[in-house]
Amino acid sequence: MRLILVAGTTATATVDGLSAAGADPDTMAHTPSADAEILAYGDVVRSPVVPVSPTGCPTPAVVTRAARDLLEFPVTVVDGGLARPTAAPTVEVGAAPGGDVRDPEPVPDAGGTYDAAVGLGRSLPEAELLVAETVPGGTTTAMAVLRALGESAPVSSSLPANPLDLKRSVVAEALAASDLAPGDCAGDPRRAFRLVGDPVLPVVAGLAAGAAERGARVTLAGGTQQVAALAALRHAGVTAPFEVATTSFVADDVPDLRRVVAGFDADPTVTDPGFAERSEPALARYVAGEAKEGAGMGGAVALAARAERLECLKNRIVEMLDKIGGRHEP
Amino acid sequence: MRLILVAGTTATATVDGLSAAGADPDTMAHTPSADAEILAYGDVVRSPVVPVSPTGCPTPAVVTRAARDLLEFPVTVVDGGLARPTAAPTVEVGAAPGGDVRDPEPVPDAGGTYDAAVGLGRSLPEAELLVAETVPGGTTTAMAVLRALGESAPVSSSLPANPLDLKRSVVAEALAASDLAPGDCAGDPRRAFRLVGDPVLPVVAGLAAGAAERGARVTLAGGTQQVAALAALRHAGVTAPFEVATTSFVADDVPDLRRVVAGFDADPTVTDPGFAERSEPALARYVAGEAKEGAGMGGAVALAARAERLECLKNRIVEMLDKIGGRHEP
Repeated sequence: MRLILVAGTTATATVDGLSAAGADPDTMAHTPSADAEILAYGDVVRSPVVPVSPTGCPTPAVVTRAARDLLEFPVTVVDGGLARPTAAPTVEVGAAPGGDVRDPEPVPDAGGTYDAAVGLGRSLPEAELLVAETVPGGTTTAMAVLRALGESAPVSSSLPANPLDLKRSVVAEALAASDLAPGDCAGDPRRAFRLVGDPVLPVVAGLAAGAAERGARVTLAGGTQQVAALAALRHAGVTAPFEVATTSFVADDVPDLRRVVAGFDADPTVTDPGFAERSEPALARYVAGEAKEGAGMGGAVALAARAERLECLKNRIVEMLDKIGGRHEP
Repeated sequence: MRLILVAGTTATATVDGLSAAGADPDTMAHTPSADAEILAYGDVVRSPVVPVSPTGCPTPAVVTRAARDLLEFPVTVVDGGLARPTAAPTVEVGAAPGGDVRDPEPVPDAGGTYDAAVGLGRSLPEAELLVAETVPGGTTTAMAVLRALGESAPVSSSLPANPLDLKRSVVAEALAASDLAPGDCAGDPRRAFRLVGDPVLPVVAGLAAGAAERGARVTLAGGTQQVAALAALRHAGVTAPFEVATTSFVADDVPDLRRVVAGFDADPTVTDPGFAERSEPALARYVAGEAKEGAGMGGAVALAARAERLECLKNRIVEMLDKIGGRHEP
């Protein structure tokens, strides 16, 4: 088993009020680079700060790294369009930072990176892969891709109150700027990625398609962005079985999640990490509905639950946060 | 502890008869990319073949990966000028493939990559680092750098019979093309790297300098290329203690090695992996003097010896070779 984190950026994240994946728009551009470092080294290295939400919720990458410490699975980071330097080793598939989804063509090379990711997924040796993502603003681009494919699946948010009206208006602008009506990209997910996506989605979908093709078990670790990847895989004609592993925080935000995943003929796994039983303020931010998911958190807690080590996981998370300082009182 | 492999290329490797780090000049360009994959995944992924010498000696990267399997140390690959795609995750410091050492300026950005590597070495969290290299043709560029610094230290070879006359003539051409007499770069190793080096050396030296600056214990894992990195560090005014860990194959080829390393005020560690006690043909190629070192092999066998697990290491190497097919009868 290997966890692959696809880390990238979209200028869509700079839309005010859209994402909580960083304290402010400027530091948000560093979040995927920092998440990759936390997974690789257990701390930030080149990145300026441990990512936290505006109100102090630490990045879910801490949860995934804590799970890695306990369960010792290997992790590979794929550059899905990083905009800031990272000390984490990354695999290149040709991805560049994504433009604003309201541009006519925010991800010009989506087709090329999809193909390169298929090749990589096909050649990796592991029989089981967890594919994860980190891209601030990614639920908005996921919504745009879903609509371009003609899918009505709902999306979640890293904010406690999902700014759905704002997202819908950004997505409407995005479709209009690319001369698309909902459903115009049905059966052509590469076009949807290119015209209204972010650079992470084609890489996630490509890796999953390539690995599935050679018979690997693939878990899409994450929330509604992974639903968009899953929808894209089905629109690409990939019929392999997939699992979507996410947190109870996402499932609470999107009550339809299990039904939607099952509708795409995939298995939903929803895991409650049990943060509500703990008193630490950093974990309480999650219980209050912040962050919810990201950087493979849903897959990581599922692995810890499967190994019956959720208590150890929580202790390890708190230990890490004490050390690296990803805890801010609002 | 972390092992950092700096992987890169120099067009110098295409000089006929200079290197055995690949079956022929064309596949030699893939060797560092393949070595990185073997360290990351235990097998080649994107690279076309498991590197072997023209007579079938498997790449020393197999030895380092086998040691990693046993001792479970983390590995990071830094791109020191790769010329072919790799599926191994790499950290970027701005290095590009190196030109022919007989060009006037084969590594134009050596100063920039040295600085970036210093920054990376300074910020990594580990208290102990092993810095390793893989660059076909690297002993020739190491000789050129040593001479430019005014150092007479000898260099080894990946061939059983060190083509020293050829190397001396290439190095003389290299110095002449850059308008240098021996010693002209004394005290200025960045200039030596830029004018007569390869892109891996400044990154190795920079990582070591940065990590040493923050008090980390640094082992230069490798043969006479690491002696060149060590000499460069001393010429850069770095006074920290260093260890050079290499194989008995290099020490047999360069009887002066221990004295030379001690002369640069560093500790030599020479480890015999005991391949002579084994009957497997792949290991016999090493006993016959091929490859000798590379991709951190000397550091890897030192770690295995320290853990008293050399026997396990050899079994693991043979197991790996049986699986990935890095065994060719000449």
